[in-house]
Amino acid sequence: MIAAIIVAAGRGTRMGPDVDKLFLEVAGKPIVVHAWERFAGHPMIDHIVLVIKDGLQSTFREFPEKYHPILKQKPYSIVLGGSQRQDSVWNGLQSLGTDVELVAIHDGARPCTSPQLITQTLSAARETGAAVAAQRATDTVKESNDGSTITHHLDRSRLWTVQTPQAFRVDVIIKALGYVREQNLSVTDDTAACAYIQQPVRLIESSAPNPKATAPSDLPILETLLARL
Amino acid sequence: MIAAIIVAAGRGTRMGPDVDKLFLEVAGKPIVVHAWERFAGHPMIDHIVLVIKDGLQSTFREFPEKYHPILKQKPYSIVLGGSQRQDSVWNGLQSLGTDVELVAIHDGARPCTSPQLITQTLSAARETGAAVAAQRATDTVKESNDGSTITHHLDRSRLWTVQTPQAFRVDVIIKALGYVREQNLSVTDDTAACAYIQQPVRLIESSAPNPKATAPSDLPILETLLARL
Repeated sequence: MIAAIIVAAGRGTRMGPDVDKLFLEVAGKPIVVHAWERFAGHPMIDHIVLVIKDGLQSTFREFPEKYHPILKQKPYSIVLGGSQRQDSVWNGLQSLGTDVELVAIHDGARPCTSPQLITQTLSAARETGAAVAAQRATDTVKESNDGSTITHHLDRSRLWTVQTPQAFRVDVIIKALGYVREQNLSVTDDTAACAYIQQPVRLIESSAPNPKATAPSDLPILETLLARL
Repeated sequence: MIAAIIVAAGRGTRMGPDVDKLFLEVAGKPIVVHAWERFAGHPMIDHIVLVIKDGLQSTFREFPEKYHPILKQKPYSIVLGGSQRQDSVWNGLQSLGTDVELVAIHDGARPCTSPQLITQTLSAARETGAAVAAQRATDTVKESNDGSTITHHLDRSRLWTVQTPQAFRVDVIIKALGYVREQNLSVTDDTAACAYIQQPVRLIESSAPNPKATAPSDLPILETLLARL
């Protein structure tokens, strides 16, 4: 069995103080509904876990009626998020049945992910234990210890920016995030937890655009990309 | 004396095979004209060097008449670019008069740069020798030796993505790029050359958006930002 965990419990602030970007409508539907559709419509996915903020249960339960029947094609469950992203993912992982072997973890704010990328990420995770959608870095990146002077000029040809889906064998990600929680560490993405248990992570190059909604200026781009899907 | 070198000799390919992004019109003018205006209108700049592709001399010479009288406020000269960005910058540097002490090097495809950012970058370069406009990294970045497996999970809180202007004392950047050329090295930005001569580089945080045109999806964003300047 393969599950998808859609993380929709975050608190982005760049859209404005009282705007939850996940519910902004793009191409006629909330952004998070598009993200959900990508997995509900994918043949490898058996079950979907939506990790959401408390109080929004009925909003999510109404989505399958209100928007696309494809959302009803896969059983789904709703889990409440935690205070940080890694806590939300952990709650989602705890809710999985013991028959789930592989899991794809996805940002609810990333609505345009291609079926190919989901397939490739899951397949690589089955093989290696962990895999992540990624893109070659286009920016020139520098490291600074103090935030005021460059301490290391990184070699751009070796840099990748990671996205989601991030896919894992369930035993691997439970072990990795479990260690991070035990040690009171904090990680910005789930693959970073793998480093603590020496778990290799495969990079899967996103060939199609797979942006995340972060700022208002992203919305017209998402609209254009969703129209092409 | 302070000069600005505007690098407008690149061959971006992401806009399509026969499109030179510098000449795409945004808010009524080619992108490179906006970039030129930012420096022609800045009180610290005494002279502008446009590094361009051969054959486009007359196009550039017509811009001041055709677009904005502000372009005529500062003397400018035209220099031909080289095969790589670092060669174009080198050609621009060679053309500077011996009375030029400080130089700001800027991408012709970056049209929205604020006067404050230009001032701060030049002031820091006067003090330290080298400075660069930069933004805290928002992406999670990984390093990979082979392009297929993550070899290093970088700490995002220490990462910056660099932009332009990059400003230097002229003697510093001539020494740094001269060394890179002598050794047949290749750098993706001018501050990377400074590492070879142990020249510290200051980071100047861009508070306003300062995007570079790279893909067609950037154009509506540039339009919005330019309307606000």
